[in-house]
Parts: sequence; C-alpha cells; structure tokens
Amino acid sequence: MVKVVIAGCGTIGKRVAEAVKKQDDMELYGIADVSQTGGLRTVLSEDGPLHGTHLYASNQEGKENLEEQGFYVEGLLEDQLDEIDVVVDCTPPGVDEANKENLYEPNDVKAVFQGGASDDIAEVKFNADANYEEARGEDFVKVVSCNTTSLSRTMSVVDERFGVESATANLVRRGGDIPQDGRGPINSTIPVTEVPSHHGPDVQAVMPELDITTLAVKVPVTFGHVHMVTVDLEEDISEEEAVQAFEDQPRVRLINAGEGYDSTGKVHEMMRDLERPRSDMPEAGVWRETIDVEDGKLRWIHMVHQESIVVPDNVDAIRAMFDMEDKETSIEMTNEKMHIE
Amino acid sequence: MVKVVIAGCGTIGKRVAEAVKKQDDMELYGIADVSQTGGLRTVLSEDGPLHGTHLYASNQEGKENLEEQGFYVEGLLEDQLDEIDVVVDCTPPGVDEANKENLYEPNDVKAVFQGGASDDIAEVKFNADANYEEARGEDFVKVVSCNTTSLSRTMSVVDERFGVESATANLVRRGGDIPQDGRGPINSTIPVTEVPSHHGPDVQAVMPELDITTLAVKVPVTFGHVHMVTVDLEEDISEEEAVQAFEDQPRVRLINAGEGYDSTGKVHEMMRDLERPRSDMPEAGVWRETIDVEDGKLRWIHMVHQESIVVPDNVDAIRAMFDMEDKETSIEMTNEKMHIE
Amino acid sequence: MVKVVIAGCGTIGKRVAEAVKKQDDMELYGIADVSQTGGLRTVLSEDGPLHGTHLYASNQEGKENLEEQGFYVEGLLEDQLDEIDVVVDCTPPGVDEANKENLYEPNDVKAVFQGGASDDIAEVKFNADANYEEARGEDFVKVVSCNTTSLSRTMSVVDERFGVESATANLVRRGGDIPQDGRGPINSTIPVTEVPSHHGPDVQAVMPELDITTLAVKVPVTFGHVHMVTVDLEEDISEEEAVQAFEDQPRVRLINAGEGYDSTGKVHEMMRDLERPRSDMPEAGVWRETIDVEDGKLRWIHMVHQESIVVPDNVDAIRAMFDMEDKETSIEMTNEKMHIE
Amino acid sequence: MVKVVIAGCGTIGKRVAEAVKKQDDMELYGIADVSQTGGLRTVLSEDGPLHGTHLYASNQEGKENLEEQGFYVEGLLEDQLDEIDVVVDCTPPGVDEANKENLYEPNDVKAVFQGGASDDIAEVKFNADANYEEARGEDFVKVVSCNTTSLSRTMSVVDERFGVESATANLVRRGGDIPQDGRGPINSTIPVTEVPSHHGPDVQAVMPELDITTLAVKVPVTFGHVHMVTVDLEEDISEEEAVQAFEDQPRVRLINAGEGYDSTGKVHEMMRDLERPRSDMPEAGVWRETIDVEDGKLRWIHMVHQESIVVPDNVDAIRAMFDMEDKETSIEMTNEKMHIE
Repeated sequence: MVKVVIAGCGTIGKRVAEAVKKQDDMELYGIADVSQTGGLRTVLSEDGPLHGTHLYASNQEGKENLEEQGFYVEGLLEDQLDEIDVVVDCTPPGVDEANKENLYEPNDVKAVFQGGASDDIAEVKFNADANYEEARGEDFVKVVSCNTTSLSRTMSVVDERFGVESATANLVRRGGDIPQDGRGPINSTIPVTEVPSHHGPDVQAVMPELDITTLAVKVPVTFGHVHMVTVDLEEDISEEEAVQAFEDQPRVRLINAGEGYDSTGKVHEMMRDLERPRSDMPEAGVWRETIDVEDGKLRWIHMVHQESIVVPDNVDAIRAMFDMEDKETSIEMTNEKMHIE
Repeated sequence: MVKVVIAGCGTIGKRVAEAVKKQDDMELYGIADVSQTGGLRTVLSEDGPLHGTHLYASNQEGKENLEEQGFYVEGLLEDQLDEIDVVVDCTPPGVDEANKENLYEPNDVKAVFQGGASDDIAEVKFNADANYEEARGEDFVKVVSCNTTSLSRTMSVVDERFGVESATANLVRRGGDIPQDGRGPINSTIPVTEVPSHHGPDVQAVMPELDITTLAVKVPVTFGHVHMVTVDLEEDISEEEAVQAFEDQPRVRLINAGEGYDSTGKVHEMMRDLERPRSDMPEAGVWRETIDVEDGKLRWIHMVHQESIVVPDNVDAIRAMFDMEDKETSIEMTNEKMHIE
Repeated sequence: MVKVVIAGCGTIGKRVAEAVKKQDDMELYGIADVSQTGGLRTVLSEDGPLHGTHLYASNQEGKENLEEQGFYVEGLLEDQLDEIDVVVDCTPPGVDEANKENLYEPNDVKAVFQGGASDDIAEVKFNADANYEEARGEDFVKVVSCNTTSLSRTMSVVDERFGVESATANLVRRGGDIPQDGRGPINSTIPVTEVPSHHGPDVQAVMPELDITTLAVKVPVTFGHVHMVTVDLEEDISEEEAVQAFEDQPRVRLINAGEGYDSTGKVHEMMRDLERPRSDMPEAGVWRETIDVEDGKLRWIHMVHQESIVVPDNVDAIRAMFDMEDKETSIEMTNEKMHIE
Repeated sequence: MVKVVIAGCGTIGKRVAEAVKKQDDMELYGIADVSQTGGLRTVLSEDGPLHGTHLYASNQEGKENLEEQGFYVEGLLEDQLDEIDVVVDCTPPGVDEANKENLYEPNDVKAVFQGGASDDIAEVKFNADANYEEARGEDFVKVVSCNTTSLSRTMSVVDERFGVESATANLVRRGGDIPQDGRGPINSTIPVTEVPSHHGPDVQAVMPELDITTLAVKVPVTFGHVHMVTVDLEEDISEEEAVQAFEDQPRVRLINAGEGYDSTGKVHEMMRDLERPRSDMPEAGVWRETIDVEDGKLRWIHMVHQESIVVPDNVDAIRAMFDMEDKETSIEMTNEKMHIE
C-alpha cells in the first residue's frame, strides 16, 4: 500500500489527510507540521478525525515548537523518508520548494504540490477530469488551485462534448476562509487589476488547447467563490444537452435554485443539512437555472467551495503517479469514500 | 417509548428531530410541515440525516403544497394525534398557539414550545440546567431562546456556587443565520433601543430570583452571538474557582483563545474540524482567558451558537414532562447521544 | 424658468432635488412625499441642504402622516399642478404609474421616471450620453437604472469610436445602500438565476443596436456595484485609444489603482476626501489598469455608485424634454453645477 | 498666530489639518509625510480640501519617495522647525517617539500626540471636556483615542452632575475603516481576551477618580463603534435629567432612533444627508431612547465615529497648550468652525 505523509496541516492539508485515511488502497502514514494552529490541535484531539495519527515535525525547530505547545511528536519527517512513498505537500510557497530540493528529491520520495506553489515546481499540473493521464508515473505533480479546478472540471466536459471555441469566466472570489478573521475586506469589492487575470493561463496548464480568458474581483464572503461563465461553442446544442453534460460529470453538482438553494449561503446550509464533514462541498456546484444556450453560446454560473474542491484531485494524483488505477476507476473510488455522489 | 413528532422543520425543528432520533428512550414518530424549504428537502433526501422519516402535513393546504413540491406525505398530523405522546412545536409564533388550541389540548397531546412563542403559551419556561424539576409532569413547556439558554446555563452554576447579587450582560447578536441571506445588516450595528432589553426578564422566567439586566446590539455576522458579562458575587472567589465552575457545567465549553480559538470564526472552524453535524456547538462557549475576578466581581465573555444551543434542552424537556429521568441523568443521556463532551 | 417638483424624497429623490436646486435654468418648486424617513427629516432640517424647500404631501393621508410626524406641509401636490412644469417622480413602482394617470396626464405636467418604473411608463428610456436627442419634446421619459447608466455611458463612447460587435458584462451588485440595514446578504453571494439578466435588454432600451449580454450576482457590500466587461470590437485599437475614449467621456472617471485607489472602499474614501456631498460619485469609475486590448477585444472593470450615478441624467432629461439645450451643453452645465470634472 | 504642522496625513492627520485650517486663531503652516497614500494624493489634488497646502517630507528618504510618486515637496520638516510652534503628530507609534526626541524636544517645538502613542510620550493625556485645564502651558499632550474620547465626554458630564459610583462600558468595535479593506473580520466576532480591556484605564488617564471597567469585542463593520454603558450613580435622578445632561454637553449628539436613525448605518446616512465633510460625526452619538434610569442606575447606548471624534479635541489641545482660551470658549470656537451644533 502506498504510504502517504501530509506535510502542512492547514486548510488543504487536514482535509487531504482525512481523505487519504478513508481510502482502501493507501495508508496515511502520518502528518508533518512545525507549529500550532487551531486546526492541527482540533483534528488530533480526542474527538478529532485524525486522533491517533502520527505527528512528525518538519524540522528540528518545529519539533521544539510543537512540543512546547503540548503536542506529542513522533520524530522528524526527514527520518521517515525511507519508509514512505509520497508526500502531499501543503506547506506555504517557498517551503514546498525547499522541501522538494532538500527532502523529496534526495530521498526518491514523490510529492504532490498545491495550487499556490510556483509553476516550475512540477512539470505536470493536474486536474483529475482534465488530464489524469499526464500524471502517470510522474514524481512531482502540482494540483491546480480551487478556481482552476472548478473551471477545468466544467470546461473539460463541455469541450469534450461540444467543442469550446473560446470562453470567458468572471470570478467573484471570497475574501478569506471562515477562521481567517484577520482577512478583509469587510465592505468593499476589490478588482484584480491584472486583466486578464492569471486564472485563464492556470486552466491552460491542464487544458493547453483551451482559449479562455478571466477577470476577477474579491468580495466580503467566507464560503465560496462564484464564477459567471460564457462559452462560444463549436456546435449548436440544446439546453438539455448542456445540463446532461454537467450531470454526467461526476464532480459537478447541479443545484436547483428553485428548490431553495439560490445562494452560496443556502448551498452551504445544504451541505450542513447533509452533515457533510465540515459542511464541505468538493463538487463544483452549477446552478441549473443559470444554464443558458443561445446562438451557439453556453452560459452558466457556478460556485466553488474554495477549501475542499481540490481534495479529491489530490487523492487521484497519487493513484496516477503510482499507476494504480485508470482515471474513471480512481475518480469513482475517491468519490465513493468521500461520499461524493 | 415516548412517541415524538416535530412540527415545523426549520432551523430548530430539523435539529431537534435528529437529536430525538438519536435517543434510545424516545421514538421519532415523524415530522410535520406545510411547505418546501431547502432544509426540509435536504434532510429528507437520500443522503439526508432524516431520510425515511415519516412526513406529515400540518394541514390540508400544506398537504397539497408539499405534494405539489414533490414530497411524499404520509397524511395529516391531526390524524396521528391518537398515536403520539408529544409534539415539539417549532412553528412560527401564532401557528404554535393555534396548534395548542386546536390540536394538542383537545387530543391530550403534550407539547414543547420554543423561545419565539408567546410567554403565556406555557406556564413553565424551561432550561435543563436552571429548572429541570419544574417541568416534571407538565403538559406544556416552553424552552427559552438561545441567548436566554446560554445565560441560564452560566448563571445557574455561578449563582449556585457563589451567589449572584446582580448581573449585567451585554449581547452582541448575529444578524441572521447562514442560509438567511435576505437578512441584514451588511455593514451596520443596530442597537436594541428597548433598554434594558427583554433578555433579562427572559432569564428570570427560569431563574426568578436572579437580578439580571441586559442590553443588546445586532451586528453583521451569521454564526454566533457573543455576550459580555459582569456579575457582582455574594462572596469573593478566586479565578480558579470560577473556571472550575464552568468546567463542571456539562453544557458549558471552555475555549482557549491562546490555542488558536480566539474568535467566533475560529470556534466555528473548531466545530468543523471536530466534524460535528452542521458544525453545531450546542454548548455555551466561554473563553477561558476572559474569565476575570476582581473585588468580588466576576466577568467573562461567551459565545452562543444560536441555531443549536437549545436542542439538548428540548430533549430534556420531554424527559422531564414524562417523568422519565432525573435532571443529571437526562442531561448525561442527551449529551452522550449528541456527542457533547 | 422650468418649475420642478420632486415626488418621493428617497435615495434618488433627495439627490435630484439638490441637483435641480443648484442649476441656474430651473427652479426647485418643492418636494412631495407621504411619510417620514430619516432622509426627509435630515435634508429639511436646519442644517440640511434642502432647508426651506416647500414640502407637499402627495395625498391627503400623506399630509396627515407628515403633520403627525412633525413636518410642516405646504399643501397637496395635486393643488400645485397648475403652477409647475415637470415632476421628477422617484416614488416606488406602482405609485409612479398611478401618479402619471391621476396627476400628470390630466394636468399636462411632464414627468421623469426612474429605473425601477415599469417599462411602458414612458416610451423613451433615457441616458444623456446614449440618446439625449430622443427625449426632446417628450412628455414622459424614464431615466434608466444605475447599472444600465454606467453601461450606457461606457458603451456609447466605445461603440461610437470603435464599433461594438458584441459585449458581455458581468455585474457584481451591492446588497443594499448604507442606511438599508434590513437588507442582506451578510455573508453570501446570490446569483441572479435569470440568465442572461435583464440588464442587457435595459441597455438596449437606450442603445437598440447594441449586442450586449449580462450576468449578475449580489454580494454583501453597501457602496458600489462592480462590472467586468468584455467587448468584441469591429476594429483593432491600441490600449491608449481605449483610455483616451474614456477620458473624453465627461461622466466617466478614470481611477488609478496604483495610486492607492484599488477597491470600491478606497474610491469611496477618495470621494470622502474630495468632500463630495454624501461622498457621492456620479461618474462611472473605470480602473485604468484594468483596460486591456488584445486581439480586437477590449476589457475593463468599472464601478458604479448606485445611489448617485443617475442624478445628472435626471437633470439633463428635463432640459431635453423642454428643448432647453443641446446634449453637450446640458451635460456641461449639469456637470459644472454638480462639480463633476 | 500659532503655526501648526500636521505630521502624518492619514485618517486623523488629514482631518486635523482641515480643522486647523478652518480656525481663525491658528495657521496651517503645512503637512508632513513620507509616502503616497490615496488620502494624501486626494486632499492635495486640485479639487481637494488641502489643495495648496505646503507638503514637507518628514525625512530625506520620504522626500525621495514623495517626489518619485509625483508630489511637489517644499522641503524637509526639520528645516522648518524654527518657523513653527506646534506639530500635531499623527504618525504611527514609534515614529512619534523618535520625532519627539529628534525633532520637537531639541527645537523647542510643542507637540500633540494621538491615542495610539505610548503612554509615556506625554504626561498629560487630554480630552477637552474632561481635563482641558491640565494641558495649559504643556509642551507635550496626548489626545486620547476615539473610544476613550466618547467615554470621557459622556462620563464627565454624568459624573459632574450626578456623581458616578462605578461604571461598566461594553464596546463593540468596528473592524477597520472604509478604505482599510485589508482588515477583517468578514464574518466573525472577536473578543478582546484581556479582561477588563485597556479602555477603562485609558479613561482614567483623563478622569483619574472614575471607577470604570470595560470589555470589548470587534465586529465586521466599517463605520462606528457602539458602547453599551451602565453607571451606578451617587444620587437618584430622573430620565429627563439624564437626557438634559447629554443635551447640554456640546459634543454629545442625541439621536432619535424613532425618527429613522436607529442604527449606525442610518446615522451615517444622516451625516451624509447633512453633507458633513466625509460624512464625519465628531460628536458622540447617544440614542435618546436607550437612556434609562432605574434604581440609581443610568444606562445608555452610544456610537462613536472612530475617524473623526478626536479631531476637535486636537484643536482644543493646541489652544490649551498655548494658553489661548479657556475651555468653554475653545470648545465653542472649534465647534463653530467645524459646524458641530
């Protein structure tokens, strides 16, 4: 069984650790970190979902920090590298690069990096729906960011079925996550003044042929980005075909605004009512009523749960890198264990 | 086994239904409602926590509504009243009173009402910690509101141990719940101009001897009220004694700001990381660092999860009304099944 | 001099009243309303900008209301209709239609209506930049809404200079105005599920040839909508030409994000620091850095101060309806008196 | 005439500069800063309220910065110290101390510091209502912070008239100002875990005899703190006497919630409708309906416009330090020029 360590137990790391733990074909060997956060303390606590997981320190100073803060530390990550197969590195940009150079490369340990990492950290950028095959056998893979993941999932099925001539996506980004209360804005809309924004090229990293342009703003919400999308199709289709395409995409969830789910807050409540862990929604959520086809143009609005959408793709990346399963099987396995319908 | 119906499956109703379902000594006979909400649809869906629960219509018009909206309705609530023992009525103010008069009283069905109901709907106002005994054998009981519940829980243990001469609590209330996106304010603080506010007398409904005065404002947050409390004690105590009192109160949770839980957002994240259903926190949360004793005055700041704090008290109210268990046992049973430590 | 009454002294009405008062070629005869709002009371108070303006009641019941609330009422609006030339009707939808039928038409009084009015209230929809000429001599004119006004101003100059083949605008709307604290959302993004949204056709009411499509969401801010715009041009142009076009449009303001004005909050502060009345910005504000030209596509992001942007167009509408000045002169006169550079 | 320089042209500095400029008995000699902010650029722009004011650089590096950013700099502040009498120092904490040591003390220039400065920067802490006399002839004075100013103004009149036995104030603070969109929280309430909070001792710096205790939280609003206050009086009074006391205090404004001003947003709109510069409210605003007297306890809720409330006290501090006028005259002069009724 592939032995996995998660380095950096923040927003993404803690979720990937739990997702890996739920899989039958991989083993959560441990997690590694350098200092206390509320998240680390909670997930390792007696009632936490990672209680009993081995905690390693990413370095000596981190070990001292953690011990001072009352954590029990098994040892240093660097001393475990002979035992493990892959690290999912969710550390801050810069740290991940140093880890690659100092830990993973010298010890022949594979690694999965996250959307915030520098672009050259791994040749292959990854989204399970868009380019699973390209990660096969790779040593280093970078899973693309949350916004990019949602665009890759929706665009890949639209492009495959109907052909995308060109696409425009306008992004309304959340200001900070639920616990990030030091981040604003409180009452302001902040344009990304770089036009087009970097999200278009980011999608092209996994779908190089796609002609896509993006603009973005940031707003005072904590749960969910929202994208307004317009696509010029190569062929004319019916609205039903568009709906069907999204329904067939296993990590896209169609949301019926008319049934009482007509805002990000109400979709958040849907996840709470489903008692999903952390009220997460790893699927991209497309509002069914917003899907519109007219004169060869397809439009829709979708939401992106910024904290959890990349989690299943991290799991799939591991399977691809170790050539464990084909794309459809891996996606199905991950979804089943994560209760993504 | 006591057979329970929940009437009105909104914020409180859906939670109480699930809490009742988890108990060993009562049976969730069904839920009753009159129309679609996102919550009702989700909890009854295939992946929902109430999937399979019988849905009744509260009246004929409601039956037609619900059926039109695609729900399967077992029948009318009024036709089940011979079969059931108690209704937890979570319907809007006014409806609850009509229900009492038309349904519960004529059919000898007991009922638990919620904090929003009119004061004369039940002689006994109820908080499990403050006055469990008073509900014994009663036919109608009103569980007090979320703010009142948190004050009753904290004040009851402080008063019992140290004696409260007088108390002042200043409330900072959330503007609306997560899915209530029609509610404001967006960027404003709204004083309750009725000074003192009604929350003081509300606490006195369960602790008649308590001298307590409250002021309140409303602010743009969706998860949690916060109270700033000052109590004149009858005797001088140490800070440790105060901390111990709260630690001994089974539905008060001490929160260590210094461990990374220094805001309502971060406590919300703690509940998410614990994978509590809906990220709920039915305990009153007292920040340990804010507990201060000086010259016979005890001060602290606590938070109140407005959606879930009254849920365990609803369960206890049923046990008291049917004389099933004593206070300590009921609280322990409810807490255990709800995973309140 | 044209004698003007403003009916309905709310967000738009109070601003138009003051703008009319500042003009040399029209007279603010009075304002009319039916009941107290904070705004009415303040602007008429001793230190208010409309102190001394005659207040009429829009109907008998309104007269009693207002008097009870301590206002001095000169009389009924209907008794003044012989004396006045035009009413700028800023009353709620429905009231405006009744006013037209019962007051303005029978008494040969012209009227200007607002963006919220029904579309058939006036044949001519109006934006000074886009179609000033069409309002000449008209009896009834509807000034388009705030979002539509900003799109008309920017699109009209772009279309005139470079030709617009097609345009897409994605709107990020504020949830409520500063004093509207009953409106949400607090922490949610709400998609307009009607796709395309009504704003496209609204622009076409003043620019019938324009091929424009819009999508929209609502977010928790109180000051300013933000639009992300993509235009397919008929000819290829340079970025400098695009910038120049906006600089030449007298009611478009170029904002330099790099100089410290990189959000709606900071632009709001700019208006405060300029000591503009109410911190209003009647210009559409285009962030200079966001203007991008590539392959015949022009993109930009602009902000719209929803409360004040339509005010100068209301003044111009009066001049057009009474054939007082040509377009350029009217715009210049209005701008000068309103201190729009 | 006293020659005044304002060092640090941020939130407080730009406002004090304009207030000084409006006075007849002092001269705004210039302002000093080190780098671009949106505020500096706007107030000095052609339409700005400080257009034409001399701009000095606080140091050589600042001069280069400012010039690079396109500002015209008259010279260095240090070269003007012979010419000027007093600096109102609104620079960040630390800078102010260095300025005192390196610039003001060696050159016999007096200085007024702000609430954020360290406590030992000046022996006399200052609030015009509470202790004007103590600043007479002083070289260095620190004007207390916004929260402290509002408490000093209200407490001083209550204490003088009725005697304060003890007081508790619970503060609900804004998260950041309108342009500070990097600051949160977006959706969280943050308790100040230091209990009691520092605001009590801060008030005691100007009213040493006052027994006052404070607790505080921070919330997601941008305009206005709100305080909930409870005072034990030495004598029993009527509600009318309390109202009268506040009415007689020239920098306390009574606000009638019932007239439509029932939130900070609506009071903000009142200031906008009065066309106050920047919609500022330098008065402490007490909601009339919240004033409550019962059993010798006086309670009320007031709001504090955090950006402007200390501005008039800065002006008065100068008059006191140069022994120009007595307290009542100075307050009256400042108020008149600032249009505070």
